[in-house]
Amino acid sequence: MASWGERLEGVRGVLLDISGVLYDGSEDGGVPIPGSVEAVARLKRSQLKVRFCTNDSQKSRGDLVGLLRRHGFDISEGEVTAPAPAASLILKERGLRPHLLIHDGVRSEFDQIDTSNPNCVVIADAGESFSYQNMNKAFRVLMELESPVLISLGKGRYYKETSGLMLDVGAYMKALEYACGIEAEVVGKPSPEYFQSALKEMGVEAHKAIMIGDDIVGDVGGAQRCGMRALQVRTGKFRPSDERHPDVKADGYVDNLAEAVDLLLQHADK
Amino acid sequence: MASWGERLEGVRGVLLDISGVLYDGSEDGGVPIPGSVEAVARLKRSQLKVRFCTNDSQKSRGDLVGLLRRHGFDISEGEVTAPAPAASLILKERGLRPHLLIHDGVRSEFDQIDTSNPNCVVIADAGESFSYQNMNKAFRVLMELESPVLISLGKGRYYKETSGLMLDVGAYMKALEYACGIEAEVVGKPSPEYFQSALKEMGVEAHKAIMIGDDIVGDVGGAQRCGMRALQVRTGKFRPSDERHPDVKADGYVDNLAEAVDLLLQHADK
Repeated sequence: MASWGERLEGVRGVLLDISGVLYDGSEDGGVPIPGSVEAVARLKRSQLKVRFCTNDSQKSRGDLVGLLRRHGFDISEGEVTAPAPAASLILKERGLRPHLLIHDGVRSEFDQIDTSNPNCVVIADAGESFSYQNMNKAFRVLMELESPVLISLGKGRYYKETSGLMLDVGAYMKALEYACGIEAEVVGKPSPEYFQSALKEMGVEAHKAIMIGDDIVGDVGGAQRCGMRALQVRTGKFRPSDERHPDVKADGYVDNLAEAVDLLLQHADK
Repeated sequence: MASWGERLEGVRGVLLDISGVLYDGSEDGGVPIPGSVEAVARLKRSQLKVRFCTNDSQKSRGDLVGLLRRHGFDISEGEVTAPAPAASLILKERGLRPHLLIHDGVRSEFDQIDTSNPNCVVIADAGESFSYQNMNKAFRVLMELESPVLISLGKGRYYKETSGLMLDVGAYMKALEYACGIEAEVVGKPSPEYFQSALKEMGVEAHKAIMIGDDIVGDVGGAQRCGMRALQVRTGKFRPSDERHPDVKADGYVDNLAEAVDLLLQHADK
């Protein structure tokens, strides 16, 4: 493999995944991953541009940023690309009235959206709200529509909380896709439109940007398909078999965000 | 389309789906579909061989038969092919110790099975037990296995209860398949092995047998792929669009089991 100097040459902007890279979530707020608070601070003191690109759809952007700030992270709402505000914009643009299968924590992002007489379903990482009853409700709304529209905030397979691996929205998206015989529209990683909006907001072209994430498919594969480079951290949902993934090969594997930032500050375009 | 006489020529055995053909289920036992009790009785008085082939995985075979007998159906346990007893046999043969994600009503079918230190997951139509917590438990068992084995009792998309459409096991099977990156083994319709075991138990060859069901894919398509003929009834989960299904065309569509039996008694091999 090429040297780090070659692999990181010309990088001017960094997209950071949040869960599993900055912190490991849990019901009571989670814990920062060792070294990540300082790593973010060092990155932001450098000449590199930084933006946070999350698929977290359980919390409003304000709540997520508040939580991270309490953990010591230097982060503000305007620096975060998150799927719920992106979906909210799409619903408004297309005049869609969603039935929401979402976590209560993210409901405020849809406050301005008309949800009467729904003509689509929006599914997010609803956690405990993925009950059989709620899944049936969403399913029945879709089955009553002539052309069912299902919008999924990300399509992650699973994520890691301090208590263990948790099924993510992608699994439930697949359940509804199969039951209805439809394909969902994904708002979030690895959708190219989503990465492109984050790049645009950061003001860096794809070939000068690098994604750092713990998801070999959603973060690494998705970013690479958009022309970015991507590193996988060995934290969060990382599993050793990811380094032998049949379809996706990261531009580098690092132990954690701190190591990624060490390398970037040493080799990227400064 | 050919006449009924041609379409039903030489039929000597009939496989009957249960839910949506004999009765519409519900939490309090459901209701027989008008004319079905008499239709089954007429069929059993004829020269045609009859067997019941269900994907019901919420109830033990004994409980299902007890329920149907209370509705007036002439049916005994020995006449029913059901996925839970079939799966139980497979587990014993292969020395598999399942983690069970199933409805309590069917648990007795697995009484003789060792479930300690699980090396596979069996998923059935668990109904309300398809909670987020239970799905995570099954998911974690699979993720800890080197070669995860997921056995699904059927792969139905949904079924109809008196209260409305309900997600079936297939949707949850797809969720786990996607989250784990694996493919489930299906015990139940439309698996060819399952139809073949029902035919063997009935003692009729595929080309002399006909399936009657409400599921265009699981019943009709599955039976046809095994060389049987198949009728779809316009009861249960039937939807008008089924008659324009892109991949599956039944050998006939009938309003209900009573009409199917009228036609069979008139035209089949007697």
